[in-house]
Amino acid sequence: MANQKLFDFDVDEVMDIFVLIKSADVRVAKNGKRFLALTFEDDSGELAGMYWDANDEDVSLFVPGKVVKLNAKRENYQGKPQVKITGLRLAKETEPHDPSYFLPHAPEKRSEIEAQIDQYIFEITQPTWNRIVRNLLQKHHEAFFTFPAAKTNHHAFAGGLSFHTLSILNLAKSVVSQYEGIDTALLYAGAILHDLGKTVELSGPVSTSYTVAGNLIGHISLVDGEIVAACQTLKIDAQQEDVLLLRHVILAHHGLLEYGSPVTPHLLEAEILHRLDELDASVMMIQGALGHTKPGEFSERIFGLDRRNFYKETDNDELKS
Amino acid sequence: MANQKLFDFDVDEVMDIFVLIKSADVRVAKNGKRFLALTFEDDSGELAGMYWDANDEDVSLFVPGKVVKLNAKRENYQGKPQVKITGLRLAKETEPHDPSYFLPHAPEKRSEIEAQIDQYIFEITQPTWNRIVRNLLQKHHEAFFTFPAAKTNHHAFAGGLSFHTLSILNLAKSVVSQYEGIDTALLYAGAILHDLGKTVELSGPVSTSYTVAGNLIGHISLVDGEIVAACQTLKIDAQQEDVLLLRHVILAHHGLLEYGSPVTPHLLEAEILHRLDELDASVMMIQGALGHTKPGEFSERIFGLDRRNFYKETDNDELKS
Amino acid sequence: MANQKLFDFDVDEVMDIFVLIKSADVRVAKNGKRFLALTFEDDSGELAGMYWDANDEDVSLFVPGKVVKLNAKRENYQGKPQVKITGLRLAKETEPHDPSYFLPHAPEKRSEIEAQIDQYIFEITQPTWNRIVRNLLQKHHEAFFTFPAAKTNHHAFAGGLSFHTLSILNLAKSVVSQYEGIDTALLYAGAILHDLGKTVELSGPVSTSYTVAGNLIGHISLVDGEIVAACQTLKIDAQQEDVLLLRHVILAHHGLLEYGSPVTPHLLEAEILHRLDELDASVMMIQGALGHTKPGEFSERIFGLDRRNFYKETDNDELKS
Amino acid sequence: MANQKLFDFDVDEVMDIFVLIKSADVRVAKNGKRFLALTFEDDSGELAGMYWDANDEDVSLFVPGKVVKLNAKRENYQGKPQVKITGLRLAKETEPHDPSYFLPHAPEKRSEIEAQIDQYIFEITQPTWNRIVRNLLQKHHEAFFTFPAAKTNHHAFAGGLSFHTLSILNLAKSVVSQYEGIDTALLYAGAILHDLGKTVELSGPVSTSYTVAGNLIGHISLVDGEIVAACQTLKIDAQQEDVLLLRHVILAHHGLLEYGSPVTPHLLEAEILHRLDELDASVMMIQGALGHTKPGEFSERIFGLDRRNFYKETDNDELKS
Amino acid sequence: MANQKLFDFDVDEVMDIFVLIKSADVRVAKNGKRFLALTFEDDSGELAGMYWDANDEDVSLFVPGKVVKLNAKRENYQGKPQVKITGLRLAKETEPHDPSYFLPHAPEKRSEIEAQIDQYIFEITQPTWNRIVRNLLQKHHEAFFTFPAAKTNHHAFAGGLSFHTLSILNLAKSVVSQYEGIDTALLYAGAILHDLGKTVELSGPVSTSYTVAGNLIGHISLVDGEIVAACQTLKIDAQQEDVLLLRHVILAHHGLLEYGSPVTPHLLEAEILHRLDELDASVMMIQGALGHTKPGEFSERIFGLDRRNFYKETDNDELKS
Amino acid sequence: MANQKLFDFDVDEVMDIFVLIKSADVRVAKNGKRFLALTFEDDSGELAGMYWDANDEDVSLFVPGKVVKLNAKRENYQGKPQVKITGLRLAKETEPHDPSYFLPHAPEKRSEIEAQIDQYIFEITQPTWNRIVRNLLQKHHEAFFTFPAAKTNHHAFAGGLSFHTLSILNLAKSVVSQYEGIDTALLYAGAILHDLGKTVELSGPVSTSYTVAGNLIGHISLVDGEIVAACQTLKIDAQQEDVLLLRHVILAHHGLLEYGSPVTPHLLEAEILHRLDELDASVMMIQGALGHTKPGEFSERIFGLDRRNFYKETDNDELKS
Repeated sequence: MANQKLFDFDVDEVMDIFVLIKSADVRVAKNGKRFLALTFEDDSGELAGMYWDANDEDVSLFVPGKVVKLNAKRENYQGKPQVKITGLRLAKETEPHDPSYFLPHAPEKRSEIEAQIDQYIFEITQPTWNRIVRNLLQKHHEAFFTFPAAKTNHHAFAGGLSFHTLSILNLAKSVVSQYEGIDTALLYAGAILHDLGKTVELSGPVSTSYTVAGNLIGHISLVDGEIVAACQTLKIDAQQEDVLLLRHVILAHHGLLEYGSPVTPHLLEAEILHRLDELDASVMMIQGALGHTKPGEFSERIFGLDRRNFYKETDNDELKS
Repeated sequence: MANQKLFDFDVDEVMDIFVLIKSADVRVAKNGKRFLALTFEDDSGELAGMYWDANDEDVSLFVPGKVVKLNAKRENYQGKPQVKITGLRLAKETEPHDPSYFLPHAPEKRSEIEAQIDQYIFEITQPTWNRIVRNLLQKHHEAFFTFPAAKTNHHAFAGGLSFHTLSILNLAKSVVSQYEGIDTALLYAGAILHDLGKTVELSGPVSTSYTVAGNLIGHISLVDGEIVAACQTLKIDAQQEDVLLLRHVILAHHGLLEYGSPVTPHLLEAEILHRLDELDASVMMIQGALGHTKPGEFSERIFGLDRRNFYKETDNDELKS
Repeated sequence: MANQKLFDFDVDEVMDIFVLIKSADVRVAKNGKRFLALTFEDDSGELAGMYWDANDEDVSLFVPGKVVKLNAKRENYQGKPQVKITGLRLAKETEPHDPSYFLPHAPEKRSEIEAQIDQYIFEITQPTWNRIVRNLLQKHHEAFFTFPAAKTNHHAFAGGLSFHTLSILNLAKSVVSQYEGIDTALLYAGAILHDLGKTVELSGPVSTSYTVAGNLIGHISLVDGEIVAACQTLKIDAQQEDVLLLRHVILAHHGLLEYGSPVTPHLLEAEILHRLDELDASVMMIQGALGHTKPGEFSERIFGLDRRNFYKETDNDELKS
Repeated sequence: MANQKLFDFDVDEVMDIFVLIKSADVRVAKNGKRFLALTFEDDSGELAGMYWDANDEDVSLFVPGKVVKLNAKRENYQGKPQVKITGLRLAKETEPHDPSYFLPHAPEKRSEIEAQIDQYIFEITQPTWNRIVRNLLQKHHEAFFTFPAAKTNHHAFAGGLSFHTLSILNLAKSVVSQYEGIDTALLYAGAILHDLGKTVELSGPVSTSYTVAGNLIGHISLVDGEIVAACQTLKIDAQQEDVLLLRHVILAHHGLLEYGSPVTPHLLEAEILHRLDELDASVMMIQGALGHTKPGEFSERIFGLDRRNFYKETDNDELKS
Repeated sequence: MANQKLFDFDVDEVMDIFVLIKSADVRVAKNGKRFLALTFEDDSGELAGMYWDANDEDVSLFVPGKVVKLNAKRENYQGKPQVKITGLRLAKETEPHDPSYFLPHAPEKRSEIEAQIDQYIFEITQPTWNRIVRNLLQKHHEAFFTFPAAKTNHHAFAGGLSFHTLSILNLAKSVVSQYEGIDTALLYAGAILHDLGKTVELSGPVSTSYTVAGNLIGHISLVDGEIVAACQTLKIDAQQEDVLLLRHVILAHHGLLEYGSPVTPHLLEAEILHRLDELDASVMMIQGALGHTKPGEFSERIFGLDRRNFYKETDNDELKS
Repeated sequence: MANQKLFDFDVDEVMDIFVLIKSADVRVAKNGKRFLALTFEDDSGELAGMYWDANDEDVSLFVPGKVVKLNAKRENYQGKPQVKITGLRLAKETEPHDPSYFLPHAPEKRSEIEAQIDQYIFEITQPTWNRIVRNLLQKHHEAFFTFPAAKTNHHAFAGGLSFHTLSILNLAKSVVSQYEGIDTALLYAGAILHDLGKTVELSGPVSTSYTVAGNLIGHISLVDGEIVAACQTLKIDAQQEDVLLLRHVILAHHGLLEYGSPVTPHLLEAEILHRLDELDASVMMIQGALGHTKPGEFSERIFGLDRRNFYKETDNDELKS
């Protein structure tokens, strides 16, 4: 049973597994007693459950980031899956207790992602951009390869930031081979740095939240500032054209002012990066939603895609190709 | 000189070449005499010029679609290039006089485009979609491979429709190889048919205009009707799921209701087709604009991209990669 | 008591009546037991109620579309009317048990609606339009005269589709008599067919939901496809002008692209049909809301009218006219 | 020739007729000499023409509102019809010289419009509303029956304001007979007063322009103020419910805040008046545009209808009904 | 303990204080018994609490506007502060029982506000505006100095209307002294009258709600009507320019049609009044939200400011200035 | 005559003055000859004029930034004032020829603006902010006190940037004294730096245009980068809270994402700075437009204020105050 995951159980089945606490809110029930509204998580997904009649010790022990042994029954409440907790204790040192082990992860291994991104950096043959990219990736190395790409929505899993970056680079490679006149080095440099500011905007892979810098500055301006700082360190004039081009590609990557870019794309490479970013994010969100949908039904609505829901083809040999 | 093109001449240079009349408006000058406001075209681009004191014969001879021998001087008028006509006559039968020869063409040869699209049709392994695609492509074969993809904006050249379609198919192939869970047959079938309605919406490759059907119905509903008709011909139930999926992918390919799709994308393949369509159109429009722009300057504003202008990198070895 | 309706009871009054189950959701209460969240319906309106401690048999018996004997007390919960169920069983064969008997109905009898619409068809003197209208009305006859016009919002009652259609025809008749230059046959043909696609978009009069075709194609494109198919059956060229005009009037009847029309109105008759459709829908929604409102008070907010609420005049002889 | 109108002449035909000057701008030509850019008008429409080398006397004589004898040739300049002036002088006292004779007029005679509106007032049986309507119609009587409904756009002809009002009343009568629960008196009173503020907003039927009050207050608030003033005169409490209802119907008749209504409709009658106002204005604008359009062609774009153009059916017996 | 306020207690602390009932909704619990959802208020703020098992007498006694003796424990429920009621009775005549005593009040005393506004009226040296202002302020004197400026959002406390007005006048004074060409009298007159219509739009300082006149006419048109009425009383022509200017400044003070102004600002003074109104409202809303926020945290989201939340600086000597 | 300005002449009057060339476009006339479309400028405003039959020397001499002796007649062309050039030559060294002398200037002297801004810097008592402000003002000192605040629109005159900054500081001082809880140092620091990026975004006071950095990065991100660079120079951690606060106030000062701010205001001081910036810009634009407007008339439409025009009160003693 030790290797079973949260989503391996059907409704009314009993579970006895190790999971991570993702969030924990202290509330007061109508009977006046405190309870904990918990969210449990492992790499199969996340489920909510109420821990009733919580005493002071419970409140101090069961906090986000802790691994726990969960005894519970799988249930449905108002159409949403949840667990009914029958027992809960912290994992012992002799048991699985490393939070990172329970986090959902990118579908590729970190070492493979790193190796592939390194290869792309090698193809940034323009020296200024190459130096800036190396400088910033070194500075934020650990965070870049462990952070998610978002708190929720797309790529909201450990390593999601670098996985999303690699995915865009792969798409970019196809685009570069299909059209003429694209500055490959600029596109690759922009792709690698475009979301690097998220290493400052977000708190980390466990219990991800927005930092004050994230809320007040945002990842676009944060990485722009980092580029300026890198130039000063590397004795590159931040006003020379190649730096302006790189800054523009990144500042404009949200495509529209309404989406938080202070400028709209005015370089071919900026336009392409923006569109590949949206394409990759869309596919990831839809894949995620369809993963929990049965053939012949519609998924839940996706907040990041204008609340659209997506239909999963009937599982039909005729339809298969 | 016979092989020179409209854009081979500098300002104040004299030209003596064959060109196509793209448009011709009869107007009255302030002195009360009629003149013709002409646009000349060859595969290097298009230029305007005024033909003063036009008599009745001139008006009847110099009409859109005719090849003419043009004697003129290249000029600039209020920042726009134009020609000052010094002589004009129809091309003789013994001279170049085939309009299609002067039309801008897709950068690939028609036979190559056909061969590649045929290969993609071969990969549509689902029988319903394969039969519908073959039926409609056969019905609109000639138009599909000669029409432009638009009156102006992107791919507004002879063969642009099939070239644009092939370009999307190539991008789709990359996307399919990168992500899991995409129905390749559906995506390819949708890509091939998505703009096929333009063979009814537009008048043809020469002097392209919108037909009444194009103005009143639009290419999206036109091709949707064609699919229903094809089903009736092929004795396929237009209400069965695979037909609904194909119709949806095509109906939704403009992405937003505001852009003329009667439904928004609710299939993964519909979302992908929409985004690849936009990506290819954007790249083509920007490439076109940058083609007339000097390094270190901004292009003219592109109407189809929110009137944004695009910057062309300084031609600098440092910047090249 | 047998003839009493759901809305004949005041708060705290006890009821013992036959009603239809409109919807039934299985949920789990905080105490871990299952219950059914039911909605009951008769032609006076609909009310919610919870059926606690539901066993497997209850869950399988009490499903949408079933007529039940309901013992309950009328209550208010957080400002919304509901019932507290004290007894519930299926209606016997010897009791009222025909669901259609309990559905809210159009205020006019079906036979009268049919007769009046027939008269309008008679006035479509243009042969192409007349044949298409007759063909499609025959094909979808039963559904057209029994379906509602919507799942919720306006005309969401059995027969609502044909009642709404007739109402627009009556308004159209007034407009045609007031202005010159309107093509009566085109306007009438468009009015009759404009929402016919709802016979495919919706599941039917009982427990109305959207079909997959409804979600992926939408009633506007569905009826457009039906017209193309009818032309093929009737050997009418779908590209001839009169067919294009009819398709346009129907495609454009939502008035704006944002509302799901793939083209905006470019015919006088299309503009008129769009405005009469909106007028009739607005009046029906407001009448419905005011029907549950006391004089001197505001109705609940109407979702389909930008969440506006409507004031009901004080019941005052002075104000009456 | 005396009875011929501006639009009775074909291109290149010579005209010798009396017309009204609608507008006159003094400009300087490239050769440094002054000229007058004139617009001539009679009840067939309006045409522009340039009066070259205007001396001081010309400038002072040829002003808006004057009737002139025009010798000219009909021409087309850049797709727009105009006249080439060969002679121009003021009309003499013994010739037609009354400006009102040359204004485009409502298609019905004033006396008939007055009689029909009087009949509707008779049907406003609620005393408060009846008294307010009578008071205000008496106060603005002459202007109400001679003003246009707008400077340009719909009903921009002498008597257009009352003609538009009557048209809405006729539509309202049909609506009242079709639906239940409408307060006829309120709807009629609102319809009669809804645009009465235009008698203050506009300068009059000849050379119509906006007054300072029109620009700073607008016709909606102007008539609202008039109602308050009428109440004070008639010793009616402006805060009593029936007055509030009437004010609301009129304040809300533009339907949306963006269109200048300070409140959105919250009465059934307000919603209906708003929709009939839009319907009548749309039909009038489209009829006007189609009046200058040939069968099988599109009209010019209509500014007041989102710049849409409208198609005129091919003049085909098959299409007729 | 008698002087303690609602917000003087920490979570889990017991309170025994006099407070005002701001709102009271009768509801039915899942066990079928009625309870009261109450909101208590004093000048420290407002808190919600449930009064379980309410009998008929409770329902009739505990209504909005009553002062009560509250025994309760301070709690948090789902992140929102509330009270758990342990005892509740009406205040006796010998105890504090005047509702106005418990209302949140403007931070300045009424007499001081009156005195300062009087001084500004003195500076309205233009006689028409001075007379209108005096007439209307006299007519609505008591309400103007006791009403809140809104039901919720900014200045939603007793005296808020006049306090907000004075605040704008003070800002206006600074602006007038900084720029040239501003008509001080017009700006002051407009500022004083701009929200006076709220004395009719709102029901009063206790349990503030919208009146029927408020819902159907709105405070902008209400005060515009009052100005017209005042002119009639004072024998001032409502069409003379100075009256039009004053009406415009007030009609336009919401700045955009979408915000309910029937005209946009077309006078310098109208533009300034609009911007100062927004500035003062924003500052008041943010100050209010930050008043309940700890240093280093974000406030709750402010509905009236696009749901933005505001950060309160860390309480740090370094940051202080 | 030497001291007369461009706007000192009435229509048809002859002028013989020194002016600055603001812009010069080379064009070709219909007769095939080149001409120069010039704009002349002095501190009374700017006027256009055509220089016909320009030879190569003319084209090379008469370029933007040159002072010329202009002989011309004042004219009106299509409602716009212009000059008809009769003579033109460069100013000699012995004549007025310093371009800066002819530029429109801020209404206050530079030395006075500097002194007042210095005083405000003195009041920035928080050390981090004080050091950053001093560092950046020193770095961009000359540009800050000579550049305009925009290419066109508000404060488009030499010294306009610092004059606009000072104006906001003065308004800020009033606001700080009126409300509690505002961090004066943060507001002043933000006000001084908010538009400093314009020293990089714009080319300078003469013939102002946008730089490549201005077009690709924009003044908001440019100054944000400058702050990060200043921190590095001053050894201040760019991630510490006080730096984040200052960056936020400046990044957010356009108020809405649509207006180019990458974040919306989430600090009280950011909200205030945004509103004062808009207030000052609006007043300046309206004052400028009214400066060319006669009493009783409307100004030309102001592009930067939604194309609104503004009314200038009739010059009437009654209206004055």
